[in-house]
Amino acid sequence: MSILVVGSIAFDTVETPHGTANDSLGGSALYFSAAASFFSNVNVVGVVGSDFDMSRISFLKKRNVNFDGLYVESGETFRWGGRYHQDMNRRDTLYTYLNVFEDFQPRIPAQYRDAEYVFLANIDPELQYQVLEQINKPKLVVLDTMNFWISGKRKILEEVIKKCDIIILNDEETRELTNELNLIKAVRKITEMGPKTLVIKKGEHGALLYNNDKFFFTPAYPIEKVIDPTGAGDSFAGGFLGYIAQSGNHSDETLRKALIYGSSIASYNVEDFSFKSLISLTQEQLKQRYGEFESLTRF
Amino acid sequence: MSILVVGSIAFDTVETPHGTANDSLGGSALYFSAAASFFSNVNVVGVVGSDFDMSRISFLKKRNVNFDGLYVESGETFRWGGRYHQDMNRRDTLYTYLNVFEDFQPRIPAQYRDAEYVFLANIDPELQYQVLEQINKPKLVVLDTMNFWISGKRKILEEVIKKCDIIILNDEETRELTNELNLIKAVRKITEMGPKTLVIKKGEHGALLYNNDKFFFTPAYPIEKVIDPTGAGDSFAGGFLGYIAQSGNHSDETLRKALIYGSSIASYNVEDFSFKSLISLTQEQLKQRYGEFESLTRF
Repeated sequence: MSILVVGSIAFDTVETPHGTANDSLGGSALYFSAAASFFSNVNVVGVVGSDFDMSRISFLKKRNVNFDGLYVESGETFRWGGRYHQDMNRRDTLYTYLNVFEDFQPRIPAQYRDAEYVFLANIDPELQYQVLEQINKPKLVVLDTMNFWISGKRKILEEVIKKCDIIILNDEETRELTNELNLIKAVRKITEMGPKTLVIKKGEHGALLYNNDKFFFTPAYPIEKVIDPTGAGDSFAGGFLGYIAQSGNHSDETLRKALIYGSSIASYNVEDFSFKSLISLTQEQLKQRYGEFESLTRF
Repeated sequence: MSILVVGSIAFDTVETPHGTANDSLGGSALYFSAAASFFSNVNVVGVVGSDFDMSRISFLKKRNVNFDGLYVESGETFRWGGRYHQDMNRRDTLYTYLNVFEDFQPRIPAQYRDAEYVFLANIDPELQYQVLEQINKPKLVVLDTMNFWISGKRKILEEVIKKCDIIILNDEETRELTNELNLIKAVRKITEMGPKTLVIKKGEHGALLYNNDKFFFTPAYPIEKVIDPTGAGDSFAGGFLGYIAQSGNHSDETLRKALIYGSSIASYNVEDFSFKSLISLTQEQLKQRYGEFESLTRF
């Protein structure tokens, strides 16, 4: 099984109360891939500038992440700068330089078009739509988006949502998309828009899955020292869809376990800057943390 | 096994987006008792005014809630008025008339002084301290408090905390008590103040238990229509301590199940005004909801 992911590749400058990382590797496609590759092959479609040093992604190539769909354009790579506060749930964007990402038109290589599992990372819904037009009958399409697109490009976003099987949102986005404060009502409203399965991320409060008219909840792993929350959502999505692809089915049981694997990887990711934690994470550590989720929730 | 609870008995006027309840029965001691009496006998110590119609608590007497410690003083019963917003996590207090509660000095009847299980509901920590002085070696003391006392009477509150086994707080109170934003660090700080076991309520995000250096999380039951959140915390505490008292031990396993029973009862309580839900709730319904928590969290 392999997964197609279309998303951003970036240089991030991140300030947190624990320090600063300058021009470190980032972007939704890479965080997703680093996590999903624990379970499955990953095919990346994205764009970088001519300033991008390919050796920075060699750790991903070693893990069966395929970059045939990575286009190099003249110009600079996408750059993002952000500052996290003492309350890590809040962050300010200091700058966003789209650079080569501004004119990005996703071209899906022929050998990726029969992808069974597709992750549309959080990019312009116009691009997400273009991706779906280029691929043949995928088994499962998972969508991420954000309030910027919900308020700014609702119409095309709704078209994309209609074509997806699973949508991943945070609680604020869920409320904004539905104009409904009660999260449970909001979830049911979204199922009427298309996707029958939802994953709602609630940061330090964990995540919930809605599938087959049933809810499933997982807490966040309790962490005393969150160093850098960047990439938490994408590594969560990577663990989630990676496990599903490895399982080859999306039964309720698989989705629940997938949510725990997503939460496990995301919890490691935030324990250090950029990809530092994900690079050193082993399969044994991942299984151990999965087991800790059992002891966190069993009664 | 029986439980001693010292707390308020009140007439509440509550406005929510779903309607208004005028001068309905309320107060921490009663919500606690209504919930705890599903599992255990409860002995109440509190005060009402001469305007209090005893027939209003006959439903509790039928459930083995004992009111030998209910004192009737000349004057009016404690009255509270509050308004909930569309976002039910927020409420404004419209008025608080302490009335006879203003001069309340808890006198514990002789036959209650050997209480094994004690719940100190959210009242002035000076009164909580007086209660502890009057009782002999309890097996387990559970404390509730609020930010009003944390900021206003910290010194005596810390004396009370030192003598308690379990403290129940919400996430805001936990942060305020410890001046620590990270909830996990905050929890550990509180164990250094005395109680080795903590329960942190997070409203719609559920609750967590810290016991024996281990965390346990439960979600809140997903409810589409919260009618009236008043009493949720006290009915939660009642289900929690009620189940512990029935079990006769406070092993980690018992505490985890107790948390689920507390969450189950609280989820019923908020589905209607005042005690309407708790009056009609049956043991079968309660067991069924407990089972639903299993399917909400099993993977």
